[in-house]
Amino acid sequence: MTTEQLVAQIRKKKSFLCIGLDTDLEKIPPHLLEEEDPIFAFNKAIIDTTHDICVSYKPNIAFYEAYGIKGWQSLEKTIAYINANYPEIFTIADAKRGDIGNTSTRYAKAFFEDLEFDSVTIAPYMGKDSVEPFLAFKDKHTILLALTSNVGAFDFQTKLIDGKELYKTVLETSKTYRNSENLMYVVGATKAEYFKDIRKIIPNSFLLVPGVGAQGGSLKDVCENGMSENVGLLVNSSRGIIYASRGVDFADAARHKALELQSQMAELL
Amino acid sequence: MTTEQLVAQIRKKKSFLCIGLDTDLEKIPPHLLEEEDPIFAFNKAIIDTTHDICVSYKPNIAFYEAYGIKGWQSLEKTIAYINANYPEIFTIADAKRGDIGNTSTRYAKAFFEDLEFDSVTIAPYMGKDSVEPFLAFKDKHTILLALTSNVGAFDFQTKLIDGKELYKTVLETSKTYRNSENLMYVVGATKAEYFKDIRKIIPNSFLLVPGVGAQGGSLKDVCENGMSENVGLLVNSSRGIIYASRGVDFADAARHKALELQSQMAELL
Repeated sequence: MTTEQLVAQIRKKKSFLCIGLDTDLEKIPPHLLEEEDPIFAFNKAIIDTTHDICVSYKPNIAFYEAYGIKGWQSLEKTIAYINANYPEIFTIADAKRGDIGNTSTRYAKAFFEDLEFDSVTIAPYMGKDSVEPFLAFKDKHTILLALTSNVGAFDFQTKLIDGKELYKTVLETSKTYRNSENLMYVVGATKAEYFKDIRKIIPNSFLLVPGVGAQGGSLKDVCENGMSENVGLLVNSSRGIIYASRGVDFADAARHKALELQSQMAELL
Repeated sequence: MTTEQLVAQIRKKKSFLCIGLDTDLEKIPPHLLEEEDPIFAFNKAIIDTTHDICVSYKPNIAFYEAYGIKGWQSLEKTIAYINANYPEIFTIADAKRGDIGNTSTRYAKAFFEDLEFDSVTIAPYMGKDSVEPFLAFKDKHTILLALTSNVGAFDFQTKLIDGKELYKTVLETSKTYRNSENLMYVVGATKAEYFKDIRKIIPNSFLLVPGVGAQGGSLKDVCENGMSENVGLLVNSSRGIIYASRGVDFADAARHKALELQSQMAELL
């Protein structure tokens, strides 16, 4: 998917909501455990009731990998279902991978070609030759971890290098990578005060923003400081939406929570 | 496996060789493609002919993930085969994962409990709450990327923070993490001149050292600068060993290459 297609979808739906499919057998409604593939059954129901008010789904790969081969089957079915039924949706494999050269190319092929995700999240620690293999894929997007929403972000990401935080060095250095136009960045909503500085370095890049809701970030602050001309934001909510209810009404409850966020987004756009 | 058990194995075998199982259908001997599971058939043959002269196997998870569900089946069979037949071997899931809190715990369970690996490689960028969930597992080891063997290592890892390279900040900060005695570190052999400084910070921690051979690192330099009282080194070779031949003699050729390294190691111990 091109960035232009993503922006057009955002304008049409008046939404820049990404729903995180962090699907956990211990948290989904118990009645689904009788299904042949409870994870896929849960995801399908969430997707069918929210696809018109969000623009993106983001399965966190850890939740699938944790169930081994069965988990991978659920992931394959989920992404295939989205691509077949709602091809306008921007899909994110939240994998946070990072390896070198040929190995990165392996991961890129797995997520971009075999599973047909539009994008994948990548850790920057190993540098250029760990990121560029992902950037080589046309109309695919590499979402680099810049400033994450967790407490541990302060261990290294905000440390000063020549008077400048590491995450800014990551932003600036990554702009020099080949095919850097295919880059997006993860910036946590819990750090909204940082967005203005970030926009000085990457004025138009899309930012994937976790941490609104459960983690305490404010949608309004994120938009005021981080929105660009082409919107440039994908705001993610996972648990706050998908686990809104453990009853048989879980999908409707999820839609209700997603609508709350989407209507705020419509006002902010 | 405890560190003491690993050290005892190293002393007994006179080897600190780790063999990287980066198994690629395009590189394994063509006659194996007729097997039901060519990747497992290849791994099994390599393992059966080298287990007495190495102390560790390290599948790079990307190579398995690239083949989807079939790849995961091959990985499961490989680790189960090693654990059942050669339980003294220290196993490393080279996954380079890194996520927060519950998500890290998911990955930890997948690799430590379900697949029963002894250790997993982890990227440090997200800090404390991305690493500690792995450290919580008894007699399991978390191998943190510190200074990697690739060119991109110079993008961020060697940048100065208060006059000190980022990778040193990673080493020092990680020592303050809960259960830090379960930490090991990746340090590339191509950067042997850095080992002395590293040993000042972590005198006894085990280092997983890629980059000897194909990438140009010297085993002698690594040992002179990096060996500790309890050896403290696992030197990895992947392609240089496992792809020594594409003929029917591939396993014997791999043993021959592994023996070359092991005999050098025996002298250096």
